[in-house]
Amino acid sequence: MTHDEVLTAAVVDSWKLVIKRFDKLLGNFTDEQLQQQVAPGKNRVLYLLGHLTAIHDRMLPMLGLGERMHPELDDAYITNGDRVLGDPLSATDLRRIWTEVNDKLTAAFEQLDPRDWLEKHAAVSDEEFAENPKRNRLSVVVSRTNHVSYHLGQVVLAKRS
Amino acid sequence: MTHDEVLTAAVVDSWKLVIKRFDKLLGNFTDEQLQQQVAPGKNRVLYLLGHLTAIHDRMLPMLGLGERMHPELDDAYITNGDRVLGDPLSATDLRRIWTEVNDKLTAAFEQLDPRDWLEKHAAVSDEEFAENPKRNRLSVVVSRTNHVSYHLGQVVLAKRS
Repeated sequence: MTHDEVLTAAVVDSWKLVIKRFDKLLGNFTDEQLQQQVAPGKNRVLYLLGHLTAIHDRMLPMLGLGERMHPELDDAYITNGDRVLGDPLSATDLRRIWTEVNDKLTAAFEQLDPRDWLEKHAAVSDEEFAENPKRNRLSVVVSRTNHVSYHLGQVVLAKRS
Repeated sequence: MTHDEVLTAAVVDSWKLVIKRFDKLLGNFTDEQLQQQVAPGKNRVLYLLGHLTAIHDRMLPMLGLGERMHPELDDAYITNGDRVLGDPLSATDLRRIWTEVNDKLTAAFEQLDPRDWLEKHAAVSDEEFAENPKRNRLSVVVSRTNHVSYHLGQVVLAKRS
């Protein structure tokens, strides 16, 4: 591995590890238990699963890796808070889509070389990027990995001990 | 900035951002409110603050950046769960130490160049590192940043809305 490759691998490995932890944690919940709130009056586990799936689905066009697969999740899980709208999908379907979206992202990440990682992401203009080269693809994945960790810390609270 | 520097900056910027978010969140709690649990029967906010401080203090020798400053936190906040032992410090002192440890780490991170980031961390043997060059300093910081995010997601649940 080149130095650059070792540097980007730190980020991709972290993404894979955190997704794996979330998957493992999800495996502890029945579909019915996904209806539990992470704390009294807070988001349901199912809402957080929908939220993460929708945010990750948005990463496909944002990182130039493909079209969105599931824009139908945004209303229920990004635009609105928990229980404002009904759940658009069954828990079983949502689990499937979560895996599908992450698998697609991870496979694409593994094909990118260090130079690709430094390219700007789609939410940044050419001018902004010229001023700040740190608004690149790698920074997006670092940020989204921390976002999963944030909600992982919440979902774990709902797990039966 | 060189390509390598932009890659490592993605990680250091993320560390700084997550620490800043945690600091801002802490600012919402009085010392008394730090005694709240993040959810019924779960860790107190104060315990999580002590835990993160102790883990970050351990990063100093682990990353070859200096001696530990506060090993006295380990018993109460790493080795044991919440409320097994008493709190060794007042909330005011713990807040001060949290800032002190993070400031020292962040200042050191800003001095490291990409080659330094790729050096092995102290918890890995030369043999292990030769087999897996990904066990470097940068990977430790990526991992610890996600660890802060994980607990940040929990502490936010205790915030008065």
